Amino acid sequence: MPPAHIQRIALVGTGLIGASIGLALYAHGFTGEITGIDTSADERAAALRIRAVSSIAGDAEQRQAALQAADLILLAVPVLAILDWTQKLASTLRPGQLVTDVGSTKAAIADAAQRLVPGQFLPGHPMAGKETGGAALAEAQLFQGATWLFTPLHETTPVEAEWRAWVDRMGAHTLDLSPDRHDELCAWVSHLPQFLSTALSALLEETFGDAPELRAIGGRALREMTRLGASPISMWRDVAHTNQAPVAATLLALEQRLAHLRENLQTPELRAEFLLANHFAARRPR
Amino acid sequence: MPPAHIQRIALVGTGLIGASIGLALYAHGFTGEITGIDTSADERAAALRIRAVSSIAGDAEQRQAALQAADLILLAVPVLAILDWTQKLASTLRPGQLVTDVGSTKAAIADAAQRLVPGQFLPGHPMAGKETGGAALAEAQLFQGATWLFTPLHETTPVEAEWRAWVDRMGAHTLDLSPDRHDELCAWVSHLPQFLSTALSALLEETFGDAPELRAIGGRALREMTRLGASPISMWRDVAHTNQAPVAATLLALEQRLAHLRENLQTPELRAEFLLANHFAARRPR
Repeated sequence: MPPAHIQRIALVGTGLIGASIGLALYAHGFTGEITGIDTSADERAAALRIRAVSSIAGDAEQRQAALQAADLILLAVPVLAILDWTQKLASTLRPGQLVTDVGSTKAAIADAAQRLVPGQFLPGHPMAGKETGGAALAEAQLFQGATWLFTPLHETTPVEAEWRAWVDRMGAHTLDLSPDRHDELCAWVSHLPQFLSTALSALLEETFGDAPELRAIGGRALREMTRLGASPISMWRDVAHTNQAPVAATLLALEQRLAHLRENLQTPELRAEFLLANHFAARRPR
Repeated sequence: MPPAHIQRIALVGTGLIGASIGLALYAHGFTGEITGIDTSADERAAALRIRAVSSIAGDAEQRQAALQAADLILLAVPVLAILDWTQKLASTLRPGQLVTDVGSTKAAIADAAQRLVPGQFLPGHPMAGKETGGAALAEAQLFQGATWLFTPLHETTPVEAEWRAWVDRMGAHTLDLSPDRHDELCAWVSHLPQFLSTALSALLEETFGDAPELRAIGGRALREMTRLGASPISMWRDVAHTNQAPVAATLLALEQRLAHLRENLQTPELRAEFLLANHFAARRPR
């Protein structure tokens, strides 16, 4: 292996994704230091206990030292917190340090990165997660087979190439997109399913509350459609705020499609909808 | 065991559900005859090959003999075909024979049963299935842990009690409802998820077609939301025709809920929706 640029990582956010990255790095041969930074003392302690990090920075002085020493600063917090951190880092980042992130939307982050830390930020987004978070659910294999998106803002630097190689070793496939294309595609494949599941769950909660029959009868289809209803507002509020227009467009398109189907429950058009859906199903990976 | 009323079963429809019932009966100790009747010679042959039935009726004469000899006639075909069969059976049913079914809607079937074969029809609906059908996918364990709904039209007869005992042995939990309540609840927990998945899949097919990015990026959430897009129109057209008003009501309610969420992506109301959804998620079985 060539000399490693990335020996010290400051991991900002030791929840599900951050702690899983720490576990995955160590599981795949990383021998350097990972210092965990998190607003929650419990999450920090949990990440250290499961060895997702090699140390934790508990107070402002330790945080500052970890951030100064880091070759890579990995922001694994919700999108608005990533924007706040990018602002903070603008005045303290040393030349040669790289910042990367795992935020669910990329246009706002790419824009802030270009303005505030030009040449030193590689926006990223692993397409992995669970409907509930926390270091306790972290897994070294979380990224195995997942797609890890990047929206690069400049030619790949040597330290960025090294980080991409770590992402490969964690088992993820990388794919590069523009920030806007990322946000449009993710509105469809990730944000729409989330907001749909939230809306359906909220509707069922208001319509049925505790009705035991609903729970007795509901099977796999209902479970799948409402699984993401457990997702926290803390993460998704930031997605709604930073990807409002693309998300609203997908919701409106689905509303119109549902109305179209509703108006055609007893016409031949129903068959056309099923055949289109069958085409989509036949092509998608199982 | 008391003397068995059910020794001979005519199984009308040897697809996924019918063949799974045959397998489950034999797996749980049924020693009588099950004769498979199906419009598809391939499905009949497949059911016999996997021993979901002990014999098949290939021509009209064999069908007539099997139906005449049967203690139980089990209709495991789509809803409109169940209505057709009920009409046919009206003129040939012997006293003492019982008809039951597995149709996805119950009001239309219960109504036809009351009119055409009063006292001899126990409408049923096992909440189990897969997005694609056929005897080849049949499983003896398909009903293990599932709920098997009944919408009884009269006091339970001894032969009905025996059929209910077989349903218990197959591992299902039985639950009795009125036909109208069945159709209203199933509109929410089964039909809405299906039509939603079809509409979303059709929309994605039209919007993206073959775009490789969508497939690379889409994860578990998208897979879950579109799994039922593979479902055949043949079965669901009948549901749409016989449960139109309840299904349309659930679709309209979801359209309105999605619009509400879309209009509140950046207001505090988003949090209220997530909290309602979180409540629903916290109570539902995993």
